[in-house]
Amino acid sequence: MKLHTNAQDLLGHLQSLSRVASGRLANPTLSGVQIAATGDGIELRATDLQVGLRIALEGDVERPGTIVLPARLLLDITRQSPGPRISLELRTEEQDVEITAGSAVFHLRTLRTEDFPPLPEPADATGVLVPAEAFVATTAKVVRSAAKDDTRPLLACVLVRAEGDTLTMVATDSYRLSEKRTTLATPLDGNFEANVPARVMQELERLVPATGAETLTVARGENQVLFTVGDHVLSSRLVDGTFPQYRSLIPDSFEHELPVSTSELREVVSRVSLLAQKAAALRLAFSEGELTVSSQTQDVGEARESLPVPFHGEPFEIGFNPEYLRDGLDAIDADEVLLRLTSPIRPGLLQTNDDQGFLYLIMPIRLNV
Amino acid sequence: MKLHTNAQDLLGHLQSLSRVASGRLANPTLSGVQIAATGDGIELRATDLQVGLRIALEGDVERPGTIVLPARLLLDITRQSPGPRISLELRTEEQDVEITAGSAVFHLRTLRTEDFPPLPEPADATGVLVPAEAFVATTAKVVRSAAKDDTRPLLACVLVRAEGDTLTMVATDSYRLSEKRTTLATPLDGNFEANVPARVMQELERLVPATGAETLTVARGENQVLFTVGDHVLSSRLVDGTFPQYRSLIPDSFEHELPVSTSELREVVSRVSLLAQKAAALRLAFSEGELTVSSQTQDVGEARESLPVPFHGEPFEIGFNPEYLRDGLDAIDADEVLLRLTSPIRPGLLQTNDDQGFLYLIMPIRLNV
Repeated sequence: MKLHTNAQDLLGHLQSLSRVASGRLANPTLSGVQIAATGDGIELRATDLQVGLRIALEGDVERPGTIVLPARLLLDITRQSPGPRISLELRTEEQDVEITAGSAVFHLRTLRTEDFPPLPEPADATGVLVPAEAFVATTAKVVRSAAKDDTRPLLACVLVRAEGDTLTMVATDSYRLSEKRTTLATPLDGNFEANVPARVMQELERLVPATGAETLTVARGENQVLFTVGDHVLSSRLVDGTFPQYRSLIPDSFEHELPVSTSELREVVSRVSLLAQKAAALRLAFSEGELTVSSQTQDVGEARESLPVPFHGEPFEIGFNPEYLRDGLDAIDADEVLLRLTSPIRPGLLQTNDDQGFLYLIMPIRLNV
Repeated sequence: MKLHTNAQDLLGHLQSLSRVASGRLANPTLSGVQIAATGDGIELRATDLQVGLRIALEGDVERPGTIVLPARLLLDITRQSPGPRISLELRTEEQDVEITAGSAVFHLRTLRTEDFPPLPEPADATGVLVPAEAFVATTAKVVRSAAKDDTRPLLACVLVRAEGDTLTMVATDSYRLSEKRTTLATPLDGNFEANVPARVMQELERLVPATGAETLTVARGENQVLFTVGDHVLSSRLVDGTFPQYRSLIPDSFEHELPVSTSELREVVSRVSLLAQKAAALRLAFSEGELTVSSQTQDVGEARESLPVPFHGEPFEIGFNPEYLRDGLDAIDADEVLLRLTSPIRPGLLQTNDDQGFLYLIMPIRLNV
């Protein structure tokens, strides 16, 4: 294997690939990037077994072949390349790859190519074309509601559903739930539904703007889903099982529907959260025309702040996880947020007055009087 | 105690104070900031027993008194203050302090004021006035050579000596040594010498530009040194013992004196260092007209790059710690660095051609063939 390429292109691709390559697995080859040079061109690949990324790289192939090099180290070398061009050549006898960039010469021991698993091939036939901007904007609204850990894999997923002119995404960690429905300018020429790991969706959030692509192709296979964005193919194993039947969790009607200034409530919640340490709840007390947000941390202190809300009726108090409430408010793109509540033991809903197809359901925390 | 002050001023001061306050000590009061309000004004104080900082704060004292509040939390609250003014009032019965800022109210449990140690008083009488910019610039040249850990406290110090029109600073961790002599525009009206912990010097590097002060006053006491910068007084316990007799370590003459492009050498060293992992040395091989820098990490690979140098004579190789060599090159403020070397087992020296009063001595590492 011997090839020549542009250091700047290689650098950009390696930055994406090294986020996918995993240094924490038993198989050291998975911390590497596979470089496959053929008569058709060059492809770079990384995978952690669950997620795979393949990127076409412009360059001149002098001798075809496939190698695996440590992703992080190759990235660092490329970043410091003294010249615009970089060359890689496999030296079979030495079991290393000679990298030359300007006057600098590196010899890197190759990782075992035979341990690098094959990545799924893009299956263009079954792909659905989706507008890239709408896809990323929809992702951004829901992805923070997915669980951060993998103990219950479906909760660490985003449900992605495309049908007709509607793209719907849902995520829930069982404490809060986000749903965003986006109406597309033109109907899709196909439909799909998939449980996609949240970290794959986050990687797409980064990849799509970086490539400047206007569309992405989603191809759902039996066990895999492939996203093609420009020269990038991001693949992911699908998570088995059925996404939670969340629709039934969302109440049809609420006792109270309170429009509140989003920015004001966001700031009050942020300040009062400072004293909701050690998993303490945020207390929202509603009384005639007023909402008082308060918190208390044992041995540290307490915080309290009020703001006007058009509340009428029997006063009541409800507790929320401060971080989850903040996440919900951060996802609201309107001057006013609509707080929909019924009682201290029923979930609350954040929405906007004008229907933006977004809702954020948040479970209450029981308050100690 | 009851006072009113400007949130923005308080915020700036708390940022400095919370770097001094320590959350890691057995005495929780030391994670706090002491606020002393008297008829003369307000003073904020923090200490970790070794270092102390006191800052005068503008404000209105309604009722004198002294309290201690958690530094970090007070900083966070002040940062999010909704209005320009902030008020603090001790509520003796509740053992807390009421903080009001706009519509927000906080009650913070006080830390034990009686556990907060007294800080040294500024002793103006013995202070020496030093130009602030020269002091900070001199510090920046040497402070990275001080040891990062406290196992040998003198090695974690900067020797600061002021006499006549010369300010001298020296630091060494025993592997490399930096000395910087700065000639001042006007002679000082006094002299002093002190072993100041490197982290105190680093704090001064931050404080001095932040205050915009043009001079600082250095007052050396028996066990303490006090730096007065504008409204800030930074005090430090002096480290016992005599600073290493470093002058005798610096050879008078060298076999080779090689001017090299600083930026080129810096880049080569930086690139080749990528393959000097796991405490591997950087190898500098000198031959007729050429310097080849190389490195090797077992099971990973090697790097090599050459650059022209005016070397003549018997070729030789010398090994250096890559990080220490980089630190030395980073401290060189000239297009050309003068490499002064004698043999693989004698220390090397980095200097500039034009005498800038700076030298960087670096011990060699024995190379395995």
